[in-house]
Amino acid sequence: MKAVRLHEYHQLPVVEDVPEPTIQGPLDVIVKIGGAGVCRTDLHIVEGQWAEAMGVALPYTIGHENAGWVHEVGAAVTNVAVGDTVILHPTPTCGLCLPCRAGNDMHCVDSSFPGLSTDGGMAEYLLTSARACVKLAPETRPEDVAALADAGITAYHAVRKAIPLLYPGTTCVVIGAGGLGHIGIQCLAALTATRIIVVDRNPDALKLAEQLGANQTVEADGSQVETVMGLTDGVGATVVLDFVAEQGAEQDGFAMTAPGGSYYVIGYGGTLTIPTLDIISTERNIIGNIVGTYNDLAELMVLAQAGKVTLHTKTYPLDAAVDAINDLDAGKVRGRAILVP
Amino acid sequence: MKAVRLHEYHQLPVVEDVPEPTIQGPLDVIVKIGGAGVCRTDLHIVEGQWAEAMGVALPYTIGHENAGWVHEVGAAVTNVAVGDTVILHPTPTCGLCLPCRAGNDMHCVDSSFPGLSTDGGMAEYLLTSARACVKLAPETRPEDVAALADAGITAYHAVRKAIPLLYPGTTCVVIGAGGLGHIGIQCLAALTATRIIVVDRNPDALKLAEQLGANQTVEADGSQVETVMGLTDGVGATVVLDFVAEQGAEQDGFAMTAPGGSYYVIGYGGTLTIPTLDIISTERNIIGNIVGTYNDLAELMVLAQAGKVTLHTKTYPLDAAVDAINDLDAGKVRGRAILVP
Amino acid sequence: MKAVRLHEYHQLPVVEDVPEPTIQGPLDVIVKIGGAGVCRTDLHIVEGQWAEAMGVALPYTIGHENAGWVHEVGAAVTNVAVGDTVILHPTPTCGLCLPCRAGNDMHCVDSSFPGLSTDGGMAEYLLTSARACVKLAPETRPEDVAALADAGITAYHAVRKAIPLLYPGTTCVVIGAGGLGHIGIQCLAALTATRIIVVDRNPDALKLAEQLGANQTVEADGSQVETVMGLTDGVGATVVLDFVAEQGAEQDGFAMTAPGGSYYVIGYGGTLTIPTLDIISTERNIIGNIVGTYNDLAELMVLAQAGKVTLHTKTYPLDAAVDAINDLDAGKVRGRAILVP
Amino acid sequence: MKAVRLHEYHQLPVVEDVPEPTIQGPLDVIVKIGGAGVCRTDLHIVEGQWAEAMGVALPYTIGHENAGWVHEVGAAVTNVAVGDTVILHPTPTCGLCLPCRAGNDMHCVDSSFPGLSTDGGMAEYLLTSARACVKLAPETRPEDVAALADAGITAYHAVRKAIPLLYPGTTCVVIGAGGLGHIGIQCLAALTATRIIVVDRNPDALKLAEQLGANQTVEADGSQVETVMGLTDGVGATVVLDFVAEQGAEQDGFAMTAPGGSYYVIGYGGTLTIPTLDIISTERNIIGNIVGTYNDLAELMVLAQAGKVTLHTKTYPLDAAVDAINDLDAGKVRGRAILVP
Repeated sequence: MKAVRLHEYHQLPVVEDVPEPTIQGPLDVIVKIGGAGVCRTDLHIVEGQWAEAMGVALPYTIGHENAGWVHEVGAAVTNVAVGDTVILHPTPTCGLCLPCRAGNDMHCVDSSFPGLSTDGGMAEYLLTSARACVKLAPETRPEDVAALADAGITAYHAVRKAIPLLYPGTTCVVIGAGGLGHIGIQCLAALTATRIIVVDRNPDALKLAEQLGANQTVEADGSQVETVMGLTDGVGATVVLDFVAEQGAEQDGFAMTAPGGSYYVIGYGGTLTIPTLDIISTERNIIGNIVGTYNDLAELMVLAQAGKVTLHTKTYPLDAAVDAINDLDAGKVRGRAILVP
Repeated sequence: MKAVRLHEYHQLPVVEDVPEPTIQGPLDVIVKIGGAGVCRTDLHIVEGQWAEAMGVALPYTIGHENAGWVHEVGAAVTNVAVGDTVILHPTPTCGLCLPCRAGNDMHCVDSSFPGLSTDGGMAEYLLTSARACVKLAPETRPEDVAALADAGITAYHAVRKAIPLLYPGTTCVVIGAGGLGHIGIQCLAALTATRIIVVDRNPDALKLAEQLGANQTVEADGSQVETVMGLTDGVGATVVLDFVAEQGAEQDGFAMTAPGGSYYVIGYGGTLTIPTLDIISTERNIIGNIVGTYNDLAELMVLAQAGKVTLHTKTYPLDAAVDAINDLDAGKVRGRAILVP
Repeated sequence: MKAVRLHEYHQLPVVEDVPEPTIQGPLDVIVKIGGAGVCRTDLHIVEGQWAEAMGVALPYTIGHENAGWVHEVGAAVTNVAVGDTVILHPTPTCGLCLPCRAGNDMHCVDSSFPGLSTDGGMAEYLLTSARACVKLAPETRPEDVAALADAGITAYHAVRKAIPLLYPGTTCVVIGAGGLGHIGIQCLAALTATRIIVVDRNPDALKLAEQLGANQTVEADGSQVETVMGLTDGVGATVVLDFVAEQGAEQDGFAMTAPGGSYYVIGYGGTLTIPTLDIISTERNIIGNIVGTYNDLAELMVLAQAGKVTLHTKTYPLDAAVDAINDLDAGKVRGRAILVP
Repeated sequence: MKAVRLHEYHQLPVVEDVPEPTIQGPLDVIVKIGGAGVCRTDLHIVEGQWAEAMGVALPYTIGHENAGWVHEVGAAVTNVAVGDTVILHPTPTCGLCLPCRAGNDMHCVDSSFPGLSTDGGMAEYLLTSARACVKLAPETRPEDVAALADAGITAYHAVRKAIPLLYPGTTCVVIGAGGLGHIGIQCLAALTATRIIVVDRNPDALKLAEQLGANQTVEADGSQVETVMGLTDGVGATVVLDFVAEQGAEQDGFAMTAPGGSYYVIGYGGTLTIPTLDIISTERNIIGNIVGTYNDLAELMVLAQAGKVTLHTKTYPLDAAVDAINDLDAGKVRGRAILVP
């Protein structure tokens, strides 16, 4: 089958023929890929940023945002059958450790991360696990939803954790209305009645944000903290969801957070520098967020299939994977690039 | 009456005669002080660290950790009567703003802070509010419990917030077994079955920690992070309660926190510097804490009156306030110094 | 001033002249009534059903669902000023007991209930407390929102408690789309993405329910339990909100609840009869609900002022109070009858 | 191997030779039984009370409260190895349905119940699943802990759910200090600082309750509701844990519950009859409870291995199973009867 393989860090991956994966264990599932998202993390993989953390041997197949159809199942698989349309949780988990038994898939002590730590989904077929498969309505087109498998679950997970804080009368600031942020805004609008203020550098992103449910938008032109404070009577926002968390956004985000409020870090790349006095004097929290649970993804798919969360995507044939990667790197992709084998 | 008055920053306060306070409003309460704690914050007040934040006019009476007996009440006071033994929440609140209506006294938009922003309790009498009074068993000696009014409520508030995270099998690290920490350890032992690991520089503090319920103690000799990681199979603690949060403890505290865990900042003085990648990759939280609610204090007094939280104190006559302050500054106070008018 | 006074149980109240109320205590507020809702509970009061529980001396003024403008305030009132438009929490609370200090106004140990235990709001002026006043946008017409003061807060309170259970993919059954229910449906639609199934005997009520956000409606024709089970794959609903809870609805409601689910009792009049085996074998909960907190009302007003919750009302002049009561009793009121002095 | 087999309802089971179980699926585990609890439910099984619900074909092996050593494992088992000492969650679950993925094992849509729906653990060997195995310290004697596998997990699950309600100053009533109740009392004492009032008919049970942590005991002599109300200033208990829930205890339990409080049904057999007015007027909850999660059992074992929960047991050889059953039926068993093969 064809697959997008990384042979060397700092060099673009290539599309080449590799053997199809085979069922190894009783809970294994092979999925015929219908859509594989191209993510900024793929650029970082090529740059070698994940080399040490993941320790994967080159060459391998990238692609960690996948949806498709079940092609073959192991002996103990009961939740999906051959032919089912599925979207895949990014990290197949062991199902037996205490975090798994509490539903906290992202803290599984023995999970893999296809596309980062093992062969991923930019290919015709992907080996995954029954535990990663969320079954979809049969008519769902995988290419339409694939981006929810990673960008979507991450945004949803953060929003879901914040819901109890976001009762009517509160304000939620969203920093960054890009890949993750534009999903987060839709989740907020579907699941809360909070006032949504979106901050972004890009006026087009702000326009999209308004269409998706933002009540107010703020251009990040240097005065964004001041503007948000003004919009909130000098108090700040109950919750700040920071989908950027680099290049100063992380300091802005904490500064915009109201006393007793919570600053959710979802993006990454920057460094927070905060006097502990500022944390305690106003009792503010800084909340980490990573991917999400299996059920987060299942719930997000309910929203998606009800039309409450939609994605802007641009498809490429699998053979054009390098074009998609180059386009993303060059800022030429509106929404999400999706490879369709 | 006699009162401990600060006339100028960077000079010690003096004990002098001032008029007794009088009832001004319908919810006012005048308390005859039976015990007033001397706190490290009083040293910081003298040093002028709070001058700007509080904007109090000098001279004024310090003392923010008070207990005594109700001496006089305003027309609308119904919860306490003259003669009642009471301990005082540190910040009389308005009772009408949304945070007050949710029980979040520490986020009241119109509270005062006697001893910091108005005349405090190192005096024979203190003007406070019905909303600050927690009624005690009549035989309670105010000098025995006064330190719970500020050190106690702060430690209890943080522990209470952490309880849902501290189920059996978890580990809680306590950094600092001093004034607040030694109360926090007792609260943890009374309210959870978590494993308690206490980190402190002072071997005597660690001995006390063991008596109060610590399961393990770790001397902060430079290898404390490594030691805690070793004690937790390399994972770290589910919760870290940092009663120090300066001089590097704040970086240690976050480093000792397990994936998915929470680092509670209670002390202050240092600066956290953390890459946002480290926050998201392990989904760790940093939780602010400040004083506590009225009900926190009421609950803590239940623990105290049941003998589950006890204090080590050293009493001084009110006239010897300066001695107490000097002793505290010189590290000569075991437990808490309490002024008894 | 004119007031609607009950002189004897089982006889209709009369509109007559009484002295205007006067400020008695420092937190008292006198409100010029702009709208007073007529509630089924008023019929029950006339029937004497509340005589024993409330022990009020006749004659007195009824009306427990009120909005208007602040007319006069006591010396310690800081949250509202003369001229402010306000809606009134139904039970002015003491503000000093432990439930009040936790924000649980409905469990205050020393509250009053104007219209049931003291003079109410079917009058030109009402004596209430600063603690009952929620300030509104000045242009709000009290007659448009008065019904939120009791019917609204009760529906909102139940929905808000259920939110954490109502994530995407769940089903919520609403029994009864009348006064409270039609507000509950709007709150569910504004605050969750759950599937909403509404059950009612009245086809018109079901039509309204659809307009307000119901995903499916079920006529209560005797087969409603079966129908709901069919709509939920035989599992039942995660949450059932029962705004009727009499005449068999209460048994239906529990029967429609899924394993691990919760049945919220909001209406009253019936009697639940349930084997404890049925409670434990499926781990179902029965949740009581009464009025709500002050903050519940404040939050609901945010929804109302954003147009997310609207009311169908029919106004009557205060002089026509008896007509309104008779119309309600005769089933001639669409939505809520509101008296306008 | 020897096994305790039920051949006909209403006749005692017999000990006879049957083939040893064999590994069928990749997650199967065969456990060499070290201790199998004899439970009142076993009497009910013999009486045929579970015949319809479980639909098991006779003859089969009873015993649903088991601990022992891992004897053989399927190909995909990673959490335990041959020789490990284990206690078994009573219901092996599928691990793939939404309730399983949220950690709610007791709501798995595809679980089995060995000893009720399939062959159980009163035998030399038991076929179970990796998902049911909680690994213990190697030196643990299975006979000492087996009763925690069902009685223990059920009591712990209810207490754990109640912890957030049981802050200092609250009261918890425990009805029934027998098999489950005496574990519940220990869990309450280990995990909360609530006041524990225990109600039982049996003075010996009350004596034991005092030793295990009860603050007060009340003999159920007909005046128990009155006595509890007196002990709680006429208010009732914040939480009532009813381990009996039959013969009138269920009505007592609700009657003893304070406004805003929660009545936990754990035992079964009786019928609750409650006007919905009584549920709403005081906003009381009725909470169902069934077994518990895998992690509940894992946490309880931490308490047990720390000596915070201990059991009174009486052992019988497997051959004497019928004696044990007869002794239990005759009320001759102090604590729990445990079969040791």
